[in-house]
Amino acid sequence: MYNMNSTIISLSTDGETQFIDITGKVEDIVSKSGTKEGTAVIYTKHTTTALFINEGERGLLKDYERLLQFLPKEAGYEHDRIDSNAHAHLSSIMLGSSVTIPVLKGSLQLGTWQRIFLAELDGPRQRRVIVQVIGE
Amino acid sequence: MYNMNSTIISLSTDGETQFIDITGKVEDIVSKSGTKEGTAVIYTKHTTTALFINEGERGLLKDYERLLQFLPKEAGYEHDRIDSNAHAHLSSIMLGSSVTIPVLKGSLQLGTWQRIFLAELDGPRQRRVIVQVIGE
Amino acid sequence: MYNMNSTIISLSTDGETQFIDITGKVEDIVSKSGTKEGTAVIYTKHTTTALFINEGERGLLKDYERLLQFLPKEAGYEHDRIDSNAHAHLSSIMLGSSVTIPVLKGSLQLGTWQRIFLAELDGPRQRRVIVQVIGE
Repeated sequence: MYNMNSTIISLSTDGETQFIDITGKVEDIVSKSGTKEGTAVIYTKHTTTALFINEGERGLLKDYERLLQFLPKEAGYEHDRIDSNAHAHLSSIMLGSSVTIPVLKGSLQLGTWQRIFLAELDGPRQRRVIVQVIGE
Repeated sequence: MYNMNSTIISLSTDGETQFIDITGKVEDIVSKSGTKEGTAVIYTKHTTTALFINEGERGLLKDYERLLQFLPKEAGYEHDRIDSNAHAHLSSIMLGSSVTIPVLKGSLQLGTWQRIFLAELDGPRQRRVIVQVIGE
Repeated sequence: MYNMNSTIISLSTDGETQFIDITGKVEDIVSKSGTKEGTAVIYTKHTTTALFINEGERGLLKDYERLLQFLPKEAGYEHDRIDSNAHAHLSSIMLGSSVTIPVLKGSLQLGTWQRIFLAELDGPRQRRVIVQVIGE
């Protein structure tokens, strides 16, 4: 029988740039929803954050910062005239505002090394992420 | 009760590169669908357009062009031998072909500064975007 | 009437970097699901692969490799100290772990030139992709 469950996660970020592993929180929401087969959508409501899925190895967390640095941080952006965070907006677009993950047999179908990260790109701030589980 | 609604938006683009705010059109479709809690998927049917979510500030619209220019426009691409728009295809892949946004209490859950953009990367052309609202 | 169908595709990749057109496999799954109107989610369970939608022209397949090369392959990444594939992880993040495509009148709504690609970024390996069709 069709069911949909929507939950908001609130987070305080600590750094200007930070990658926060929210996998446990999302898994709890999926578990509590009682969904056996379905799809989870995780969505950030902010234009200077992003969501992505990858490995949580400590070295890689440093490399994710490098990925963002391949976009020049200061490049005479127009937006920097009114708010000096154009780089955070452009990084958010490159990474994306949502991730979608299947749920099977009651479990989020992350692969062995996959973790869900909220990328804080212009912190520290208070942030809100929506988790929706649709299915049965 | 489960319900799904699918609508096609047709758009004429004006420029070679253009960022078109389609938020109002998507909000109208969500409203007309009568969905109270659900998920909206917005999908572009073209390989030289993309969809993304970010702020509509006038300076940032210029900066979005800069983001695309960090991918070299002419670099002896193989595809340019038959159709000189490889850069548009690569930009489309970097940005993505769809966005997914939760609907709660009958409203698209965009954050304060979030707007939905269709990126025209090889215009001007006639373009088609599908909006689907699934929920109840 | 609401219905959800989940199928796993298993693939053996041949190259270190390879773009595999899985459109036919996904279309078969959508067709067998009997879904008339719905949404298909395609998801990769690996941190060194990605999914994207674009054209299958032979020259473009070479250009997709160029896109990845704009991220430096060797740049003293921290992760390369334990596993020399940081570039594959960063490429995966840039491209994304899933694609979402509408289904209408029983057909996947790909545009004329759109094909679905699994990007192998650290092969050859055995890979698993989940295809979910939700709808009616």
